[in-house]
Amino acid sequence: MSLSLDPAAQDLLFREARTANTFTDEPVTEEQVRAIYELVKYGPTAFNQSPLRIVLVRSAEGRARLAPLMSDGNRDKTVTAPLVAILAADNEFHEELPRLLPHFPQAKDAFFSERGVREQNASMNAALQAGYFILGIRAAGLAAGPMTGFDFAGVQKEFLDDDHTPLMIVNIGKPGENAWFPRNPRLDFDEVVTTV
Amino acid sequence: MSLSLDPAAQDLLFREARTANTFTDEPVTEEQVRAIYELVKYGPTAFNQSPLRIVLVRSAEGRARLAPLMSDGNRDKTVTAPLVAILAADNEFHEELPRLLPHFPQAKDAFFSERGVREQNASMNAALQAGYFILGIRAAGLAAGPMTGFDFAGVQKEFLDDDHTPLMIVNIGKPGENAWFPRNPRLDFDEVVTTV
Repeated sequence: MSLSLDPAAQDLLFREARTANTFTDEPVTEEQVRAIYELVKYGPTAFNQSPLRIVLVRSAEGRARLAPLMSDGNRDKTVTAPLVAILAADNEFHEELPRLLPHFPQAKDAFFSERGVREQNASMNAALQAGYFILGIRAAGLAAGPMTGFDFAGVQKEFLDDDHTPLMIVNIGKPGENAWFPRNPRLDFDEVVTTV
Repeated sequence: MSLSLDPAAQDLLFREARTANTFTDEPVTEEQVRAIYELVKYGPTAFNQSPLRIVLVRSAEGRARLAPLMSDGNRDKTVTAPLVAILAADNEFHEELPRLLPHFPQAKDAFFSERGVREQNASMNAALQAGYFILGIRAAGLAAGPMTGFDFAGVQKEFLDDDHTPLMIVNIGKPGENAWFPRNPRLDFDEVVTTV
């Protein structure tokens, strides 16, 4: 009632959207992924550091490399989803900072010379961007199936490198039959929010 | 073009929305914050763990405690914003899991008995929820000003406890005069996304 966003958009992004566990075989096109990225890239990050990196697993060969790294409960849906995205944090994001923050190029050395600081920033800001990306998938009329049940070290070794830390893996597609479980409860406002 | 979300909603949430650095004195009501929460609470988290906790700093006394903990560049806007939200991760979120994940109450002990595992999960999933919350502020027709420039240990000590880790602080309100800088560049699709 107090929101400016129209109710249909609220439903599409939050209320009717659900984490899908089955998908139809309708393909997710490169054009759709580009449209999602071109929207969600504008979501804010600290110092505009934009550390999210995405590996799309589309080929049969890529699926075959990924499948054994998924936990048992996630394997089948990852094999059958039209598209799978590995979301990762780039711990060397500072290399792009002079270009991403042109009014303050010194930030690269002043704030991010230490790898530990970069890792902390990258993981937090890439997770923020993962939130934008999940909603972007829904904005495209698709269902997202985010998962953290996989071999993180194995996925990093197989698909990434030492500078990129996996965050989550997201199945993407049109929801299939019996795509979701009943919605789980959420915490009440007063359990989450306090005022001082 | 490939998105289902209508262009006005795309603009409201991503394209025209900007990180605000000044605000008008129009209040942000409790009702607005409740409407934001009631929408974004549906955003997905791993195991529905929902670790985000929010401290709204509204009183003059609260502002006075927060102001000295902000970095110099963030202090003035935090004092003048109509409402300030401290976003934190609850590292003891597992206590609520049997209620949040009623079909699998064993998850609490099977996956989250170790504090280190909980901290890692809480920070990643609370950051995801922070992404939803920032977009929820925009969905309410308000501007968000997320900041990480503050004394994290000081904010934890002053406003939270050992079980709650601060993630970021967000100013909330209607944008004021000269509310934002020119938009910074974003990375190109092909710099962020690879396909295998």
